[in-house]
Amino acid sequence: MSNKQIIYNTPPTSSIDPSLSSGTFRLHTVPRPEQVPADKVLVRVHYLSLDPAMRQWLTAKRSYIAPVERGAVMRGQSIAQVVAVGSDLSSQYQLGDWVVAYSGWQEYAVVGAREAEKVAVPPGGRPTDAMSVLGVTGLTAYFGMLEVGQPRPGDTVVVSGAAGATGMVAGQIARIQGAKRVVGLAGSKDKCEFLVRELGFDAAVNYKEPDWRKQLKEATPEYIDVFFDNVGGEILDACLARAARDARFAICGAISQYNAAKPQGPASFMFVISQRVTMKGFIVFDYAKKYPAALKELASWLAQGKIKRKEHIVPGGLEAAPQALVDLYQGANTGKMMVEVAPVGEAQTKAKL
Amino acid sequence: MSNKQIIYNTPPTSSIDPSLSSGTFRLHTVPRPEQVPADKVLVRVHYLSLDPAMRQWLTAKRSYIAPVERGAVMRGQSIAQVVAVGSDLSSQYQLGDWVVAYSGWQEYAVVGAREAEKVAVPPGGRPTDAMSVLGVTGLTAYFGMLEVGQPRPGDTVVVSGAAGATGMVAGQIARIQGAKRVVGLAGSKDKCEFLVRELGFDAAVNYKEPDWRKQLKEATPEYIDVFFDNVGGEILDACLARAARDARFAICGAISQYNAAKPQGPASFMFVISQRVTMKGFIVFDYAKKYPAALKELASWLAQGKIKRKEHIVPGGLEAAPQALVDLYQGANTGKMMVEVAPVGEAQTKAKL
Repeated sequence: MSNKQIIYNTPPTSSIDPSLSSGTFRLHTVPRPEQVPADKVLVRVHYLSLDPAMRQWLTAKRSYIAPVERGAVMRGQSIAQVVAVGSDLSSQYQLGDWVVAYSGWQEYAVVGAREAEKVAVPPGGRPTDAMSVLGVTGLTAYFGMLEVGQPRPGDTVVVSGAAGATGMVAGQIARIQGAKRVVGLAGSKDKCEFLVRELGFDAAVNYKEPDWRKQLKEATPEYIDVFFDNVGGEILDACLARAARDARFAICGAISQYNAAKPQGPASFMFVISQRVTMKGFIVFDYAKKYPAALKELASWLAQGKIKRKEHIVPGGLEAAPQALVDLYQGANTGKMMVEVAPVGEAQTKAKL
Repeated sequence: MSNKQIIYNTPPTSSIDPSLSSGTFRLHTVPRPEQVPADKVLVRVHYLSLDPAMRQWLTAKRSYIAPVERGAVMRGQSIAQVVAVGSDLSSQYQLGDWVVAYSGWQEYAVVGAREAEKVAVPPGGRPTDAMSVLGVTGLTAYFGMLEVGQPRPGDTVVVSGAAGATGMVAGQIARIQGAKRVVGLAGSKDKCEFLVRELGFDAAVNYKEPDWRKQLKEATPEYIDVFFDNVGGEILDACLARAARDARFAICGAISQYNAAKPQGPASFMFVISQRVTMKGFIVFDYAKKYPAALKELASWLAQGKIKRKEHIVPGGLEAAPQALVDLYQGANTGKMMVEVAPVGEAQTKAKL
């Protein structure tokens, strides 16, 4: 049996080239591993996680994580199922266990116990939650909002990329914390409607409309106390110009800049001084010790309906991943974007629930 | 007797126009006040403080302080001497007392007790210290470095505008706090030599040399833990690219941007995320409750020679102020820049010491 892999081929100069013949990635087929070392498990990948951070992993700049090596399988998390267990791990894993695997972009992966976290699917839950609300995505929103943004009752909280996987959780957490106004920035009318109607945001601004800065101003009559930023660039700039005194800007990402050959800093930087703004970048991994308690709280909010989830699943198997990643930077998704490498059969899911 | 005043005339579009006939300011002569209201004092201005923040006071943008009104005397602090005392204040002030006065740019001013802070000149001190190391300038360095930058033993601390009034105090405070390396950025060879030879900085980089970014890199082999920024723009950008993990960036000013028609944000903003940088703007007035203790500590450091002072006094009377302000933005000064409105006679100084 074979195992398809997507290999990191050529560093992109600006945007990712999704072509599998001459682009950023290439397809490679190897035999599926037949033997599993004693301290490993073999997993079958079902859903690949697509994350805005991935573009940064392809840049050989000093960063929070080493870049992916050229010629290596593209890095990424997945929801996968255990299909073979090494002898040392037989007490830890059973065949059919769902795991969040650090598998990379391939159909099958041999991984150690630290790279295959077992997923406990709670009643009403789905295995894929472990990659969205109950995974790194949700944790990013949780720590960024609670530890960096620190919204207080009465605050106006703005979230950019608000219809994205992290943004939508961040905004909902702000509401749970008693924020007076929760405002989202998103890139389409549909997304804005989703934020207001489905998630209960007080307002949403479509930054693709020509007067979006005016709309943002109107949506934040008492300025911005907390800004959770996934986008950077012009949007960060506009929000700085609306910063309230002592505002906290939680800098989670800058998706507008990742593909830019020449990134733009926020021109309204003067407001950092005049309004005493604290801007703080963060990486979710730094909060790893607090994950268990955070996941418990997120799961409880999810179960109570205080947090709603949304997934955007791209069909087409592993080969669909490069184009899906390009689409992610274009804002194609509402909610967590995943590539379906192998569908989950009804029976397969039920067996574990 | 007359009182010359400099009036805010026309908002500058980018740089200040120092011409007193058709520029940003105009000269105006009024009679010197002859009577002092019971709750006021009349002061004679000797030294005007020139501060980078002044350019911002001429901009009608939302800021930490209301802009100067057109047609009003230009705002500014001075070292002044009491020449007449209102009857209610006779127990508080004596003729000849030195004060830091919120006089504005004029030769004489009638001010209330809150706008005329008596200066206690310590042994070995000078009245003008109250406007530099022992005034708002020194306090800005003190709180920016200690409360925002928080240098720890072993840290690499970089200061921009390091030969300016605030920067030079900030760098010296970092050294007192046990920083491993203190590096200054300044705009001339002479300033850099002054920082290293006179103030004991470990290195200084002249940002006007073509390879200054390379020099900055070499001067910060262990990256930058604390950056005290007075300059913004390209220098902030370069320092972000050298930020160490968990760096603290104390944003005090952005002198490079004040006159810019189109300000530039830091393009290397991505490092805020990847290195978990905290950038925090601050305004010294927010720390007013802590001034007395801070001034005591600054005075003790000054007396012990742990902090060295430097003044740059511009002669030529009140009329010299507009050009001097333009020169301040060009980096003409090393140390605290003041305009000598009226010299202090030897006897006059001695009388108060």
